[in-house]
Amino acid sequence: MRYKRSPLMEERLADNRQRILVSARKLVAEGGFRAAQIAAVAADAGLSTGSIYRYFPSKADLFVEVLGEAVKHEIEILRTIAKSEGTAADRLRRAVESFARRAFEGPFLAYAFIAEPAEAEVDIARIRARREFGNVFKSILKDGIASGEFPAQDGDVASACIVGAFTEALIGPIGPTHRGERHREQVIATISLFCLRAVVGPAVLAPRAGARSPRRRNTA
Amino acid sequence: MRYKRSPLMEERLADNRQRILVSARKLVAEGGFRAAQIAAVAADAGLSTGSIYRYFPSKADLFVEVLGEAVKHEIEILRTIAKSEGTAADRLRRAVESFARRAFEGPFLAYAFIAEPAEAEVDIARIRARREFGNVFKSILKDGIASGEFPAQDGDVASACIVGAFTEALIGPIGPTHRGERHREQVIATISLFCLRAVVGPAVLAPRAGARSPRRRNTA
Repeated sequence: MRYKRSPLMEERLADNRQRILVSARKLVAEGGFRAAQIAAVAADAGLSTGSIYRYFPSKADLFVEVLGEAVKHEIEILRTIAKSEGTAADRLRRAVESFARRAFEGPFLAYAFIAEPAEAEVDIARIRARREFGNVFKSILKDGIASGEFPAQDGDVASACIVGAFTEALIGPIGPTHRGERHREQVIATISLFCLRAVVGPAVLAPRAGARSPRRRNTA
Repeated sequence: MRYKRSPLMEERLADNRQRILVSARKLVAEGGFRAAQIAAVAADAGLSTGSIYRYFPSKADLFVEVLGEAVKHEIEILRTIAKSEGTAADRLRRAVESFARRAFEGPFLAYAFIAEPAEAEVDIARIRARREFGNVFKSILKDGIASGEFPAQDGDVASACIVGAFTEALIGPIGPTHRGERHREQVIATISLFCLRAVVGPAVLAPRAGARSPRRRNTA
């Protein structure tokens, strides 16, 4: 049998847990996982280091929850784009570019999600999250294939390729080694064009590229 | 001053170290990192668990070295393909397909390299390895851009996209959840076509699609 907590106690506990999460998220956003050590989170939340472990058994558990919240938010944005108006190619482009743009705006959080070296539990959460991202892109691919906009292709494999492509290509530009060195819009445009070309067959790309002049191509 | 070891002792130490690595590599190839716990490695190498730590301070150090050897081998193969005869598109295709094919042949080792949840040190080694892979693909892209076979594009970003695409797309098919469920050749063909389309602009792809048309160009 569990110790019965008073409503006031329950409220305080829930409040503390929330404060820990807010502090952890803030510190990760400001400097990645490395900036969100338990002692730093405790100091920011105004709690003792020991008390953090009452809510999160390990640092990895805390990171996984911070990551989970960020992923949930990101997935909501991408799903909204996936379901919005426009051609499948346009929605694909907007989804990739919006992810990349947010990654540049919040490089520490994005790097923590994509690649920052962390515990095995974080790796597990990442694999799961990337599969969720893949499902959003798979739905766009499915639409495009159904409408004839994209050639038939294996949606599971192609959507994983898309997620792998844009996340991997962001590691350099947003990661600690070269952060801020690369021209944001060029990186975003390259990633976006890479993914578009990859799923759009030549039969579709060629006429689109020649949009306003029969010989002009590839200037999108 | 260090304790001076006899040549015989040095030899035995080097021999033990090598045996540990051979055992670890074998166990990872047979069942991933999870199958290569220190006790299992020690048993396979015929050494005591404690003695393993004399050579590798931690399990992560051992894994990083196993990964490093596998990556070195893989990079050599990819570099050979990158420098071989043929168009840049053909070399790109062969490099991606040869990596994917080996991943299917050695799924546990490939999964350990790409995604198996592991210590932060392993994540660091992975980031480094992926950058090395990226450099090989960057050299192929550079050739293709120089010869006019590929349109101008940011080689750093596009090569990272390629590495991200083929590694991420392999996680499902070679990983523990769906291992063996997917048709190998279809997965490989989808990944390969994805990467090729992505870097080859429509100007090249379109005429290629119309194989023998007189408007075909840039096929050097």
